[in-house]
Amino acid sequence: MAPAGTKRGILERLDAGEVVIGDGGFVFALEKRGYVKAGPWTPEAAAENPEAVRQLHREFLRAGSNVMQTFTFYASDDKLENRGHTQRFTGQQINEAACDLAREVANEGDALVAGGVSQTPSYLSCKSEDEVKAIFKKQIDVFVKKDVDFLIAEYFEHVEEAEWAVQVLKTTGKPVAASLCIGPEGDLNGVSPGDCAVRLVKAGAQIVGINCHFDPETCVKTVKMMKMGVEKAGLKAHYMCQPLAYHTPDCNRQGFIDLPEFPFGLEPRILTRWDMQKYARDAYNVGIRFIGGCCGFEPYHIRALAEELATERGFLPPGSEKHGLWGSGLEMHTKPWVRARARRDYWETLKPASGRPFCPSMAAPDADRK
Amino acid sequence: MAPAGTKRGILERLDAGEVVIGDGGFVFALEKRGYVKAGPWTPEAAAENPEAVRQLHREFLRAGSNVMQTFTFYASDDKLENRGHTQRFTGQQINEAACDLAREVANEGDALVAGGVSQTPSYLSCKSEDEVKAIFKKQIDVFVKKDVDFLIAEYFEHVEEAEWAVQVLKTTGKPVAASLCIGPEGDLNGVSPGDCAVRLVKAGAQIVGINCHFDPETCVKTVKMMKMGVEKAGLKAHYMCQPLAYHTPDCNRQGFIDLPEFPFGLEPRILTRWDMQKYARDAYNVGIRFIGGCCGFEPYHIRALAEELATERGFLPPGSEKHGLWGSGLEMHTKPWVRARARRDYWETLKPASGRPFCPSMAAPDADRK
Amino acid sequence: MAPAGTKRGILERLDAGEVVIGDGGFVFALEKRGYVKAGPWTPEAAAENPEAVRQLHREFLRAGSNVMQTFTFYASDDKLENRGHTQRFTGQQINEAACDLAREVANEGDALVAGGVSQTPSYLSCKSEDEVKAIFKKQIDVFVKKDVDFLIAEYFEHVEEAEWAVQVLKTTGKPVAASLCIGPEGDLNGVSPGDCAVRLVKAGAQIVGINCHFDPETCVKTVKMMKMGVEKAGLKAHYMCQPLAYHTPDCNRQGFIDLPEFPFGLEPRILTRWDMQKYARDAYNVGIRFIGGCCGFEPYHIRALAEELATERGFLPPGSEKHGLWGSGLEMHTKPWVRARARRDYWETLKPASGRPFCPSMAAPDADRK
Amino acid sequence: MAPAGTKRGILERLDAGEVVIGDGGFVFALEKRGYVKAGPWTPEAAAENPEAVRQLHREFLRAGSNVMQTFTFYASDDKLENRGHTQRFTGQQINEAACDLAREVANEGDALVAGGVSQTPSYLSCKSEDEVKAIFKKQIDVFVKKDVDFLIAEYFEHVEEAEWAVQVLKTTGKPVAASLCIGPEGDLNGVSPGDCAVRLVKAGAQIVGINCHFDPETCVKTVKMMKMGVEKAGLKAHYMCQPLAYHTPDCNRQGFIDLPEFPFGLEPRILTRWDMQKYARDAYNVGIRFIGGCCGFEPYHIRALAEELATERGFLPPGSEKHGLWGSGLEMHTKPWVRARARRDYWETLKPASGRPFCPSMAAPDADRK
Repeated sequence: MAPAGTKRGILERLDAGEVVIGDGGFVFALEKRGYVKAGPWTPEAAAENPEAVRQLHREFLRAGSNVMQTFTFYASDDKLENRGHTQRFTGQQINEAACDLAREVANEGDALVAGGVSQTPSYLSCKSEDEVKAIFKKQIDVFVKKDVDFLIAEYFEHVEEAEWAVQVLKTTGKPVAASLCIGPEGDLNGVSPGDCAVRLVKAGAQIVGINCHFDPETCVKTVKMMKMGVEKAGLKAHYMCQPLAYHTPDCNRQGFIDLPEFPFGLEPRILTRWDMQKYARDAYNVGIRFIGGCCGFEPYHIRALAEELATERGFLPPGSEKHGLWGSGLEMHTKPWVRARARRDYWETLKPASGRPFCPSMAAPDADRK
Repeated sequence: MAPAGTKRGILERLDAGEVVIGDGGFVFALEKRGYVKAGPWTPEAAAENPEAVRQLHREFLRAGSNVMQTFTFYASDDKLENRGHTQRFTGQQINEAACDLAREVANEGDALVAGGVSQTPSYLSCKSEDEVKAIFKKQIDVFVKKDVDFLIAEYFEHVEEAEWAVQVLKTTGKPVAASLCIGPEGDLNGVSPGDCAVRLVKAGAQIVGINCHFDPETCVKTVKMMKMGVEKAGLKAHYMCQPLAYHTPDCNRQGFIDLPEFPFGLEPRILTRWDMQKYARDAYNVGIRFIGGCCGFEPYHIRALAEELATERGFLPPGSEKHGLWGSGLEMHTKPWVRARARRDYWETLKPASGRPFCPSMAAPDADRK
Repeated sequence: MAPAGTKRGILERLDAGEVVIGDGGFVFALEKRGYVKAGPWTPEAAAENPEAVRQLHREFLRAGSNVMQTFTFYASDDKLENRGHTQRFTGQQINEAACDLAREVANEGDALVAGGVSQTPSYLSCKSEDEVKAIFKKQIDVFVKKDVDFLIAEYFEHVEEAEWAVQVLKTTGKPVAASLCIGPEGDLNGVSPGDCAVRLVKAGAQIVGINCHFDPETCVKTVKMMKMGVEKAGLKAHYMCQPLAYHTPDCNRQGFIDLPEFPFGLEPRILTRWDMQKYARDAYNVGIRFIGGCCGFEPYHIRALAEELATERGFLPPGSEKHGLWGSGLEMHTKPWVRARARRDYWETLKPASGRPFCPSMAAPDADRK
Repeated sequence: MAPAGTKRGILERLDAGEVVIGDGGFVFALEKRGYVKAGPWTPEAAAENPEAVRQLHREFLRAGSNVMQTFTFYASDDKLENRGHTQRFTGQQINEAACDLAREVANEGDALVAGGVSQTPSYLSCKSEDEVKAIFKKQIDVFVKKDVDFLIAEYFEHVEEAEWAVQVLKTTGKPVAASLCIGPEGDLNGVSPGDCAVRLVKAGAQIVGINCHFDPETCVKTVKMMKMGVEKAGLKAHYMCQPLAYHTPDCNRQGFIDLPEFPFGLEPRILTRWDMQKYARDAYNVGIRFIGGCCGFEPYHIRALAEELATERGFLPPGSEKHGLWGSGLEMHTKPWVRARARRDYWETLKPASGRPFCPSMAAPDADRK
């Protein structure tokens, strides 16, 4: 297995102005494949069903991902225990297995391994800064041992906890990205996106941004606010965005968790590949260069990002060998009206029907109901 | 590798009144994963990316499938050539690889291997009965050599071609299922579902039914018409149903191909797992005992079928170890209003929003437009 | 006041192939204006608030109506009593006042007066043929005394009761029209539209058709079935259609009464003037020549019918002095994008939004719910 | 005819904390009845078809309106000329006729006459303050001569023009109300609702608020912002609200004019009577006491306002004799499931379907499109 560092690092790439394509969220994708349980959302599959996790990494790599995030979401000991059922694997075993899988597949292509930590039950239950940091430290010890390429602190609803995570991650000497799951209204304490970003950069993050909880439109808007905050403060950073693959115009501050469809009725909200190309373009135009996805993303969604930006990047992802751009694969269809769909304008302007005449188009978030 | 026949066969199961759970459609699932090209829809991945095909088989097995259909859809030589690009693999190689993968995974659980043939360009271009039958014969030679457990002639729009296929399949001595992709209006020549079914049974099919092109509601309704036709004719048969995982109340006779969203904008139409449970119940109530899926089905959709019928069958599928029935995995969620979703009534009555206020709920099929 | 008969009669016009424009439904229009109570739906306003009824007649006349139907819907004594509150006016007073108002306004333009009877509680409570006919006879005595131009038996759900009504109406020697409130599935006893029509023609109706309960699309389709039935039976008739001004694609056999929105939440279903032009064209193409409306029609809806058929008829209605065809009144608007709406293509293809993202597009009729 | 002043005046009522119910918009209501031309939207019907205007006044009075606004919208000479066709009546004739009609009907009940002026083409074409004021002066001379009870300057998009109008109106010594057609984003020059309100109060208006252009929800929200501005400035005022009867959640700053459905496809957006009751409650809760309507309002909408506030006011409007509260008129319906709709909970929670499965729920304003 090739050692870390033989490829150009994340900061080298971003400093050079390159676009880095992220991967998609593993918990939702593997839940649909049968390896993650909705509710706990823990990643024991890294140790329990490694072939399933490896295959998903491969699909994202093939789709164009340059980052293999270790499947270590919610893999802190306090979270794993919290789930109430005896785990067959320790947190350390899961974290190690996840690193090995990410590295194995990253080495099959042009991808880096990113070790990831996320928000902890300890913070929510008001444990001390030292206690929360000790949780992060345990995971990070594995990441250092396994020599990942860089680190991501992601899915934080409170910027304070994210700052603590960044501070721990910085002790490794590896590049650090920090990504909150907040919208334009700010974190759950009301800190604005701009202020959040400034605090994260000051804590040491070289890349800041948003992941999960909201749709691409909302996330790009929020990252834009972060960027304005950082620039206004006279600081510098790179920007990342890894939104949901669900349309959520009706979310409140808490994001898609509060929508009545979460998590088992989200299907009608899934973005098309064309929605994804729009997202990639919008993110790029705003100055975001680390562009990926979170819950709901399937490999073809990531491929759409890579295809939209193929001109800027100079190449298509490997997976495009099985994809005609803008529907060109339909060119030889036997029915003329299906052939007529083999063009960009058709798919860009299509307003897809839901086939659900008894359903509304928007929902009231639960927390907004009396 | 265990020989065929060590398990109870498809007819033994159906004769005993058991429910047989089918698998989902491979071309759509693998297109989203990056291994099948939309437009040609050919299954070269069986030879080209066997690990991806094997993984999908495993996921369906884990979800509860009792049938591993060989990934040989459109794997007739006339179709493969028709696609206009030089294939790296011959039709025979693809068919053989597909048989091996299906057998390998079937042997890991309680599943049978079904060799499948589908409609041919030769029939559409008015080749003779002998020529069309010769096409089927070539695929079937592989299925006999690989000793599949039974055979399925599926995705036929003209009952005549399906009859020819059944006649060829019957020469093997293996059980034969026949499945049309038609709706209540009948085949493309206007032969009613009831008459189609009678002709297929007379041609020798022991199992008849519907797959693809329409949503579960429409397919169950059509199989019911087939069953009434067969019973009225004083014949006997078993019934199968493998519909789309897309809501298509707005289809015309040609099915979802004619919907403007086909094939790249179908996302808002995807069924939820709860929609699937309703489908399983409806199919069961109508007397269908071979219940599976086609395009759009993901493993969790198949699992929902197995879960809905767990009481009748006496067991849950392996994959249910990662799934709380009726949302019970949410019982320990931190937010009370999310915990309140951990109940059957909530999900059964939810009308999920699309998050797409600028989109309609139904579309006019292309062929109906001037 | 001019005597009846000085104008060309209804049969003269229809025999000559002319288009006769009907009026709209009074109970719904006057309910919105405050003169009819929803629930009872009785027409005491004819006697109680004559100026309001007169004004509505005038608006329909101005919009192009050639028929002033007496506002005598549900004005049979058994219905009026049935309503449980003491009426200030007798049935005879109401019927007479309604005749006077219709005649007064009809004489202001090119319109005929049609006396109308509708289904009775007596029939529903299984009274005898003689008893039911006696009810009709009482109303008809007024119509004869007031010398209306022709008679309409409308809003019948059972063809048998409509036949009885026609038989009574025929005794007057005046032309008789008969209009059922049924859809393509037939009357509430399951008699098909074609058979209903044949029975009404045989009973003596010179004009047959459909009113109320369904949207224009459904009503035109049903009248077409009536016409085919009459022609197949070797009979002759003229055809009329007076549908709802509400879109009801989701109705069951009982029509809009069963929709959950009836009668106080129907607003989002109201047809636009452009929908009405399409209805007029469709009705004309099917061979219907007496084209009007029922519940939900406002004067501008009737004007739209007259405008759509202005070429065939050779003239516009008086009310068109206040209406630019196909939105041409917008030609001088200050904003260029509003001016751009002053064209037929814009309004013909517009899919109007509901502004109700939390509402579905279709509803399940109450009777279909468990 | 009774002289002005024999009833309690508008300020007396508002100072006493009473609710004053306004009327609905005449141009839209009379367009549907055939007396106003969409596009020009001028009120020549006051002189041309007085019986139609009188009848609409009566219906609003009966529905509960305490204010008869003179039908003088756009009745300034510069607007009338602007419309490009020779008018049969002078501006003065129209204004005088409108005053007479309003007075005649006001005297039939407990209503006041309000003379109204609205924005002028002269302002938009950058005429001087003196020239614009002269336009207002001409209309006001009529109002003084006809001795209206109070004055309303309404439908202004620029607060500056509204201030000029208020200044002219103040010269009469009569109470003055000022109403802008703006939303929460402020007037077309970007002056916030709070600042607009302060300026209008300082110019002399005793009542300030919003009319037209947006739905009730948006208008109430905007008036609330005006109220906060006035209170923050240490000033005092009464508040009025006269919104559209159309749902417009998708409007931009310019209001419903920019929606693609304006003005001929707005039907699916029409509010139900239950929506209106919610509006009345919301307005009341915010502290608005002059509560009425604008374009789209029909008499039953105004009645719903009066019914919602009947408890606070101690009486129902005359028109309620023909209306069962909360659907109670359905209590004796023959079908049990329709009877089951005779209750408040049913109508308050109903999400009415559009019957338009091919239409979206929201639209993009024209000005937002490229």
